[in-house]
Amino acid sequence: MNHPAAQIVLASASPRRAELLAQLRIRFSRVSPDVDEAARPGEDVVDLLRRLAQAKALAGRELAGAALPVLGADTLVAVDGVALGKPADRTQALDMLARLSGRAHEVLSAVAVVAAGSIQTEVSRTTVVFRPISMAEAARYWDTGEPADKAGAYGIQGIGSVFVLRIEGSYSGVVGLPLLETERLLTAAGVDCWRYRQA
Amino acid sequence: MNHPAAQIVLASASPRRAELLAQLRIRFSRVSPDVDEAARPGEDVVDLLRRLAQAKALAGRELAGAALPVLGADTLVAVDGVALGKPADRTQALDMLARLSGRAHEVLSAVAVVAAGSIQTEVSRTTVVFRPISMAEAARYWDTGEPADKAGAYGIQGIGSVFVLRIEGSYSGVVGLPLLETERLLTAAGVDCWRYRQA
Repeated sequence: MNHPAAQIVLASASPRRAELLAQLRIRFSRVSPDVDEAARPGEDVVDLLRRLAQAKALAGRELAGAALPVLGADTLVAVDGVALGKPADRTQALDMLARLSGRAHEVLSAVAVVAAGSIQTEVSRTTVVFRPISMAEAARYWDTGEPADKAGAYGIQGIGSVFVLRIEGSYSGVVGLPLLETERLLTAAGVDCWRYRQA
Repeated sequence: MNHPAAQIVLASASPRRAELLAQLRIRFSRVSPDVDEAARPGEDVVDLLRRLAQAKALAGRELAGAALPVLGADTLVAVDGVALGKPADRTQALDMLARLSGRAHEVLSAVAVVAAGSIQTEVSRTTVVFRPISMAEAARYWDTGEPADKAGAYGIQGIGSVFVLRIEGSYSGVVGLPLLETERLLTAAGVDCWRYRQA
């Protein structure tokens, strides 16, 4: 995964973000920054999201120690103005799935690119509509192991897709890295995204 | 890919449809039916789409010779009431990309399941909005090899994702197999979709 001819550094431990970036055929190396994800008192969720994406990119630059652009990202699930993180246990996961059942929620993804002393950030916002999910089905879903490490207790790129009636916005943003916005930021930072795409 | 404990048969040669079905952790075997995809004189595009999904499922049942439910699917890209198939060559691909540039189009996906003498079909309809694509960029995209075998000359699950401003509907439908509808049809046909999902 750490490409010898890397064009950028991905500051993320998420295998899903690495897969999305690989989908663009960008060559990258990876670092896993350790960032405190706690909200500040009274901090707006979008401000928090932008701050965390930027903090990951900046911490990633320290770790990488290279002159390459560094990309950080953060994603959250929001419903009724409440942000849902990763569930701590089965009970929390079932509570989250009950809350998302049969209605719409929002997924916000921020991506930040630090390059040459400047940092640029974009936020993608997507509405996801779930069909109703029974308690029994939520319990079987928990048993698959998929919800445990996912914000909002579901993975749209896995079995969780069967709950999704429709989305309005960016699919890659819901998975964790909005690709159109990512390419726009990388291009603005001087990365030639088309360089290694030829068959 | 041909699972010894298959629950269903996938009647499709598309690696993308196989990946989507695997995402649901359904166990399946595969056959590749050869179906004439030509429209009948005056045939409506949705009628054509449903007929092809059903024809693939029925031809698949002949090939498989098993008593398992058989799933067929068909997908088309439509813009200004015109259906776009796979491009025959570079010129057609660049024409299609120019036509899709900077605006919305529709992707329709039909899925059909034949089981125990009956056949059920669902159609998923998704709006996809593209950012503007320059001629130079479309040419570079052609050179990646990705557009050649894709309806509408793009793949949303590949580099084509960088053209997508947003979608409204089903992401898996745009890739080629709408997963919520697929699970609904399989469940109606008596398949226990949760059977092999435990971690």
